[in-house]
Amino acid sequence: MAAEPLAPGVWGVVATPFTGSTQDVDAASLAKLVDHYSRIGVTGLTVLGVFGEAVRLSAAEKRAVLEVVVDSADLPIVVGASSTSTAPVIDEVALATEVVGDRLAGAMVQVNTPDPELLARQLDAVHAATGAGLVVQDYPLVTGVAISAADLAAAVERVESVVAVKAEAPPTPPAIATLTARTGVPVFGGLGGVGLLDELAAGSAGAMTGFSFPEGLKACVDAWWRGGYQAALEAYLGYLPLVNFEAQARIGLAVRKEALRRRGLISGSGVRAPASGMPETLAEQLDRHLAAVENVEN
Amino acid sequence: MAAEPLAPGVWGVVATPFTGSTQDVDAASLAKLVDHYSRIGVTGLTVLGVFGEAVRLSAAEKRAVLEVVVDSADLPIVVGASSTSTAPVIDEVALATEVVGDRLAGAMVQVNTPDPELLARQLDAVHAATGAGLVVQDYPLVTGVAISAADLAAAVERVESVVAVKAEAPPTPPAIATLTARTGVPVFGGLGGVGLLDELAAGSAGAMTGFSFPEGLKACVDAWWRGGYQAALEAYLGYLPLVNFEAQARIGLAVRKEALRRRGLISGSGVRAPASGMPETLAEQLDRHLAAVENVEN
Amino acid sequence: MAAEPLAPGVWGVVATPFTGSTQDVDAASLAKLVDHYSRIGVTGLTVLGVFGEAVRLSAAEKRAVLEVVVDSADLPIVVGASSTSTAPVIDEVALATEVVGDRLAGAMVQVNTPDPELLARQLDAVHAATGAGLVVQDYPLVTGVAISAADLAAAVERVESVVAVKAEAPPTPPAIATLTARTGVPVFGGLGGVGLLDELAAGSAGAMTGFSFPEGLKACVDAWWRGGYQAALEAYLGYLPLVNFEAQARIGLAVRKEALRRRGLISGSGVRAPASGMPETLAEQLDRHLAAVENVEN
Amino acid sequence: MAAEPLAPGVWGVVATPFTGSTQDVDAASLAKLVDHYSRIGVTGLTVLGVFGEAVRLSAAEKRAVLEVVVDSADLPIVVGASSTSTAPVIDEVALATEVVGDRLAGAMVQVNTPDPELLARQLDAVHAATGAGLVVQDYPLVTGVAISAADLAAAVERVESVVAVKAEAPPTPPAIATLTARTGVPVFGGLGGVGLLDELAAGSAGAMTGFSFPEGLKACVDAWWRGGYQAALEAYLGYLPLVNFEAQARIGLAVRKEALRRRGLISGSGVRAPASGMPETLAEQLDRHLAAVENVEN
Repeated sequence: MAAEPLAPGVWGVVATPFTGSTQDVDAASLAKLVDHYSRIGVTGLTVLGVFGEAVRLSAAEKRAVLEVVVDSADLPIVVGASSTSTAPVIDEVALATEVVGDRLAGAMVQVNTPDPELLARQLDAVHAATGAGLVVQDYPLVTGVAISAADLAAAVERVESVVAVKAEAPPTPPAIATLTARTGVPVFGGLGGVGLLDELAAGSAGAMTGFSFPEGLKACVDAWWRGGYQAALEAYLGYLPLVNFEAQARIGLAVRKEALRRRGLISGSGVRAPASGMPETLAEQLDRHLAAVENVEN
Repeated sequence: MAAEPLAPGVWGVVATPFTGSTQDVDAASLAKLVDHYSRIGVTGLTVLGVFGEAVRLSAAEKRAVLEVVVDSADLPIVVGASSTSTAPVIDEVALATEVVGDRLAGAMVQVNTPDPELLARQLDAVHAATGAGLVVQDYPLVTGVAISAADLAAAVERVESVVAVKAEAPPTPPAIATLTARTGVPVFGGLGGVGLLDELAAGSAGAMTGFSFPEGLKACVDAWWRGGYQAALEAYLGYLPLVNFEAQARIGLAVRKEALRRRGLISGSGVRAPASGMPETLAEQLDRHLAAVENVEN
Repeated sequence: MAAEPLAPGVWGVVATPFTGSTQDVDAASLAKLVDHYSRIGVTGLTVLGVFGEAVRLSAAEKRAVLEVVVDSADLPIVVGASSTSTAPVIDEVALATEVVGDRLAGAMVQVNTPDPELLARQLDAVHAATGAGLVVQDYPLVTGVAISAADLAAAVERVESVVAVKAEAPPTPPAIATLTARTGVPVFGGLGGVGLLDELAAGSAGAMTGFSFPEGLKACVDAWWRGGYQAALEAYLGYLPLVNFEAQARIGLAVRKEALRRRGLISGSGVRAPASGMPETLAEQLDRHLAAVENVEN
Repeated sequence: MAAEPLAPGVWGVVATPFTGSTQDVDAASLAKLVDHYSRIGVTGLTVLGVFGEAVRLSAAEKRAVLEVVVDSADLPIVVGASSTSTAPVIDEVALATEVVGDRLAGAMVQVNTPDPELLARQLDAVHAATGAGLVVQDYPLVTGVAISAADLAAAVERVESVVAVKAEAPPTPPAIATLTARTGVPVFGGLGGVGLLDELAAGSAGAMTGFSFPEGLKACVDAWWRGGYQAALEAYLGYLPLVNFEAQARIGLAVRKEALRRRGLISGSGVRAPASGMPETLAEQLDRHLAAVENVEN
């Protein structure tokens, strides 16, 4: 649990599958999904994030999700905190350190203020209380808090326990350029991979996001390291239409879970209310995209 | 814990006082504040609401706050839930039922969707799991969710376990008129009492809000029942400048806590980060308002 | 049209009355309303602001409104610009200078960026093109732009042509304290007068806002100058319930116009779509408030 | 000017180029850009939209832009209105009908209310006053107004003068499916083409958006008609990374203008304040994307 920077590459953001009828956490599907991530060779996993529907889980369910993930793969794990204030965030990170132990690569904490000094204090307090390395997530769509990239860099520079930034305040490429120029901390793109090529070009360490074909994210990042823009473009191109399809506002999570279901990686695609399910009118187009991607993979 | 409608009158929204240096929960101040509410004769207390800074408390602190409140007065208690999704709301309400027991007059649950059917289902699920009567809080500034008064009434009509609505979506007077015309459920105004006269005229059952002189809220509501508009106006007028002063956006909680401190009801006026403290430039004006109100009271 | 600071006091924000059936500009009512302002001795008038529904008027109607106002009183006039970009703002200010001539006390321009340097450039460009003194309106609810008080002060300090600031970003009292401490420019409160006492205490030069009894705003400001807080409180108290009633979100303009109509100052209280009319459920309470205020005045 | 439905295909949204030093409208560049659209065979042009920076142009500049566009190509023209209220929208549409005459395929009017009846009345009033066919633009990011797809369809069904809908409320594919199922009106996607494949699958009539290689939009739409999903995918794939790059929040217009400049279609890439220019950190990546697309085209 030392504050080591996150390793570059793809950190798979893990969805929380639910059983069809009762919407309980589906441990078997979760294990299968995590196993898939493991087999394709992602760098690590991110659990209990926005796309893991963490805000819609009970405390017992959060613990159960962590336990399944820990048991299903040997990968390092980032655990998200849903609260935005110090005391309850410490509660959440304490649970993560207890369950995940040495495998905890970082606790993901939201930017909760535009003020870099207050943010630095919040991060210091969470680390002091838990010992965890911190992944700072800048996601204004979810938090309603907008910080400038310069102020975020200023906060990150002051806090030694920061092990990564997850940059999800569009436009992300210039923000990532600012953050990597000013801090030594690895910065990951998110937002479903819509800007992955441009985030890598801006200096990102990889992707930390959900996508039904994480193979595509990995192919892109690996190719970037190996051959730069042109290689990454070629590796990613076949996935991009599905990436855009899954990144649709409000319904993206439902679309992604349905794609995972059709791939056979989870058994049910339900999302908890009040989130919206995938509109039936998109079903056929999802099939087309999945067929096109499977074509690419073969 | 039967689903009896909340009694009309003033439900005092209890602030959570912190100790000066470490910002721990200040149990002695909390007990003193609750005792004050009790002595002035409010109908009941509302704990762990927005103005109780519930989202900035750990689970242990929430429990401690409830225990102090339960021990410090014999009043019925409404307990707020900060989460907006069913499973974690049930966690919070379960804690409230456990600690508050028969004194729990209602669990306060946020409107988390503009869809009346989804809202009704969320309320039904929380009641089914906990047995608690429900106070539905409509507070879009905090939740980001805007529901029409008609749709809110439609949801409330369908859910037997609703014991009250806390209407905090401005403009509240016409919303309260719609809700009281369409449901038999008591509706309380909030928002610091800025519109209390107009909310009573629209049919509200009283006030459920924080104000450093809850005596003023009670005087107004009692006078309304006794003598209608003119009596309530005369009773409330002397408090109104301080009501407006305390209702300032973003800093209202800090101003109110400082007013409580100057009244001697709590020992420290700190608010937890990232909330803002009271700007120093307001200190003198707060003194003027407090002096004017004390003048009214004598 | 020299850039002289606005004189302190009450600047009456003029509503645009419409005829009942066709919702044409009602020149006779407008003249009557302006004449009333003149007779009660306001310092000046503000025309084509948000509460004048300027964004819902055609170019010909804007000109007509200005002509009626110019002809109906000898007061100095501030004219609002609805656009937020330099070129169309210059169009609007040019119309104001053409029609209002020497009586133009200032052109009111919106804060359109949180960046003080960009804001200063916008103000300089408007002044360079038109010669008009500028009233800078900071009204994030309308523009969606949030600037800090410090940054607004920085912009104002750099631009000689600024003749006043209209501070409508809550909480306004600390913002006004910052602005008056850092600039020599008069700052006026708005927002219907809800915080007038506190704005005066923070150093405001008066009120620039709509209220159906501008007599109350004037009584308050005059009393403040004469006797400070206690005098102003006494002068304003009787108006405050109606002030709060008229300041209701979204429907405030409709309520205010209906109050003006019941006072006999305009013939019809219609607002142009898609703005909402006054809900019928508020009619009786408006009568009570008006009767109470008339009682105060006699 | 009869209310004929817009022809399907690509409607090129025309940027307004400015001269480098003084940021005057650059008529020569505008003519060149329009000529390019004409030569590649777009169905029509959309002028004075959001990406034409219409809200930052003076009335004289708007007229000049329209005149240049009319003189530079024989294509049908949609003209955007920036205002959201009936009277000033009528002013804008009247200018469009005067300058564009018989070539006016539609006046583009914003959704300005979530209420379908009020929206229908607004559209009827604009048509009654101007005779123009109407393109209804649903763009909540710009207007702040969110209408459901069902309510938008209800409004459109009631107004005969609607010739098209421009659907820019994400997620657009299900909204387009709803609109095309319920109305006979052609619906166009926008938003830079990020969802073009999915919008076509949902039944859209094509694209009405800005993109530095409108050739790509046209290739995609033409291929869709010819060969469905697979053909459109193949045609569009090479453009998609640049599409995503240009669709970046806040800086998208600046990126797109710089791409147009590098292509030689306009002389300067300046955007008017307070809009942001393209961050320098993106320059190299833009070159890579442009080279990759030119590779595709050859």
